[in-house]
Amino acid sequence: MLPISHDLLNDALSRMGVGDDITRATIRQIVALSSQLEKEAGESFLHLELGNPGLPATEVGVEEEVRRLREGIANRYPNIAGIPEIKKAGSEFLKAFLDIDVPGRYVVPTVGSMQGTFTMMLLLSRRDPARDTVLYIHPGFHPQLMQSKVIGLKHETFDIYNYRGKALEAKLEEILSKGNVTALLYSNPNNPAWTNFTEEELEIIGRMATRYDVVVMEDMAYLGMDFRRDYSVPYKAPFIPTVARYTDNYVIFLSGSKIFSYAGQRIALACVGPKLGERAYPKMVNFFGMPTFIDCFVFGVLYCVSSGTAHSAQFAMAAMLQAAVNGELDFVGASREYGRRAEQAKRVFAANGFHIVYERDADNRPISDGFFFTVGYDHMDSRTLQGGLLRHGIATIALSSTGSLQEGVRICVSMLSDDEHFDLLDRRLKAFTREYPLM
Amino acid sequence: MLPISHDLLNDALSRMGVGDDITRATIRQIVALSSQLEKEAGESFLHLELGNPGLPATEVGVEEEVRRLREGIANRYPNIAGIPEIKKAGSEFLKAFLDIDVPGRYVVPTVGSMQGTFTMMLLLSRRDPARDTVLYIHPGFHPQLMQSKVIGLKHETFDIYNYRGKALEAKLEEILSKGNVTALLYSNPNNPAWTNFTEEELEIIGRMATRYDVVVMEDMAYLGMDFRRDYSVPYKAPFIPTVARYTDNYVIFLSGSKIFSYAGQRIALACVGPKLGERAYPKMVNFFGMPTFIDCFVFGVLYCVSSGTAHSAQFAMAAMLQAAVNGELDFVGASREYGRRAEQAKRVFAANGFHIVYERDADNRPISDGFFFTVGYDHMDSRTLQGGLLRHGIATIALSSTGSLQEGVRICVSMLSDDEHFDLLDRRLKAFTREYPLM
Repeated sequence: MLPISHDLLNDALSRMGVGDDITRATIRQIVALSSQLEKEAGESFLHLELGNPGLPATEVGVEEEVRRLREGIANRYPNIAGIPEIKKAGSEFLKAFLDIDVPGRYVVPTVGSMQGTFTMMLLLSRRDPARDTVLYIHPGFHPQLMQSKVIGLKHETFDIYNYRGKALEAKLEEILSKGNVTALLYSNPNNPAWTNFTEEELEIIGRMATRYDVVVMEDMAYLGMDFRRDYSVPYKAPFIPTVARYTDNYVIFLSGSKIFSYAGQRIALACVGPKLGERAYPKMVNFFGMPTFIDCFVFGVLYCVSSGTAHSAQFAMAAMLQAAVNGELDFVGASREYGRRAEQAKRVFAANGFHIVYERDADNRPISDGFFFTVGYDHMDSRTLQGGLLRHGIATIALSSTGSLQEGVRICVSMLSDDEHFDLLDRRLKAFTREYPLM
Repeated sequence: MLPISHDLLNDALSRMGVGDDITRATIRQIVALSSQLEKEAGESFLHLELGNPGLPATEVGVEEEVRRLREGIANRYPNIAGIPEIKKAGSEFLKAFLDIDVPGRYVVPTVGSMQGTFTMMLLLSRRDPARDTVLYIHPGFHPQLMQSKVIGLKHETFDIYNYRGKALEAKLEEILSKGNVTALLYSNPNNPAWTNFTEEELEIIGRMATRYDVVVMEDMAYLGMDFRRDYSVPYKAPFIPTVARYTDNYVIFLSGSKIFSYAGQRIALACVGPKLGERAYPKMVNFFGMPTFIDCFVFGVLYCVSSGTAHSAQFAMAAMLQAAVNGELDFVGASREYGRRAEQAKRVFAANGFHIVYERDADNRPISDGFFFTVGYDHMDSRTLQGGLLRHGIATIALSSTGSLQEGVRICVSMLSDDEHFDLLDRRLKAFTREYPLM
């Protein structure tokens, strides 16, 4: 029966070793916790904590994998630099949807973007001992912070909340001018806030990155999902915004997990700016014994961490990218379903007195509807809010776990697949507000 | 036309940035070099340098991947700790063929054994700052040496050539007693030498590992391929030799690449000794915030480096392991083909005056026939031998590139698939010996 009692929640938390502060739990722990509480309550929870794709895998990819497996590719090591098909399709995709020129040499498959960002940081850790810090523009995806820690890099972070628009410039200047930052990382659209940088902000980031020779790691896990503009037509404006227009020092991480609902096969691309790819940082090339940044990345790092990415998954990704380029696969249209779910979910939250935490972009437009959004409730702190929602059968993650300094939780709409879910969400939020009436 | 001239070879080498010493080239560079020289010579080379499987991928795996992909698993993140099917099948496989007890909790899929050994070293790098060294029992697979270097661990090595049998004990004692070694690594059967440790040697390694609390990383890429005994029958002696019988401090790396000819899909298992898995090295558990070695490995390291292994490849591996356990797939019998090729290739080399470098095991038996063997020619140094063979259309890698202190080259038989290849090998070796007659 819902709500779960405070005691039951606290017991479950301490058994998991999280202590009594639920906001310190990882996503994985929230998943385990909510599964356990579901059993005790005898009712299914609404799983708004997880980022699993809520749509079927793209058929073009599945069929290509099947075809290639039957052709016999499973016994041969894939090219570590990527099969020719994925390098070609990736390069064309970047031209068709972002309007940038990245030859296939600089387009490299990775075992998901997790491997992409991990290996890029591992590479950059050998650039220069004085550049030992990664700057995270938060909020963000917590495991990426763990990546730099595991590698032995330091990090700096700031919450974008108070540094939108021109304010971003002074903040970046303050941090980057110290000279210890090797790379800065953000996701755009932002996970969890679903903010999008404006062109002005991207220009600032790019200019600062050039000035201080910092590599911008642009995580485009949710590429094209700013549905306020239509990015669905290949080779036709508007094109997807990217820092690549404003600096040569960029690496774009383009994952198949969300845009093609292909998370299970762990396939993504690291797309290195061509000029960056031909750089030869002396300590790096000396360490790996390879002549350029891109060679160090592929033959020094990727070879070493997994000898490349599964052969069939490379073919799947290549086929999906190529179908999108050819106008045969409207991946933006398919993911628009998340926008529809977000719009409906936001209405339910608003009707129950919740507000959007990261509400507007720097141009003052309300954020797009998409995969995630953030909600707060009155002046309630994250811990009370996340715990209260969970006790009422709604699993979320706390904003503090994403590096945000704001009070609130992240809502992922991927699992809200039908009207019944929205009705249930409404009923449970009403029960929550009865327990915690607005002042 | 063969042979290639010395000048042409030297030009090609220096264009690749290898300088004039061919033994310094990586396998990948030898592949590129021989492809280029093939064009100049207008004749195909014998590619004895590469370790690509020379057999088709195991059908059971391919069909299971196809089935699961069509079922729709591509859109869902796989369990990072491994899908239940692979944990169960892996555990049963270890019982059936090695006669050891490793519950599924300690059986974890990785993106090939390259990811397995990389991530295990990454984990161990957080065990204790005083344990900063990996001991490689050489000869071995060069990229594994690169792994510890990239992670920032130191290494020690020795060539097993002069330390077989009881002599191994004093050598291990000398190195391990210093207390700075966190793990020792070897492959068995050995790549490149195709030696196999005797039970006496495994007992010494296990005992020393226990005494000095060192983790043994046992790379079983070529599991079951010591064809001098028949390891093909599940749950029936003889069982495959392993250090797991002599210490609790072990991790076995079991790759699908060679035993199932599944290299393309990058799938392997890291099998952690259950007692090691439940250890809680204080600095390690503190760093990762996880209670045990196995939890630190899965949720601290594997999550961070790639968020797990492709979903369909996990199902393929599970199906192949299970079929082997059930006696429906004779993977040992299938790989016996490599033994046949090695036996025939050795005869051709012997008939032309070559000798086996690593010729016998510690019990004085001639080594098994299998995937690799090593050859020397008279007192010729590795550089002259590797360059000479390449000029005559035979690509190999130098023993020095595998950490061996002996003069010679490694021969991989996987590509010697028909009589025509053996005839060609014989003709080219004869041409080589005419240029370099035995003294």
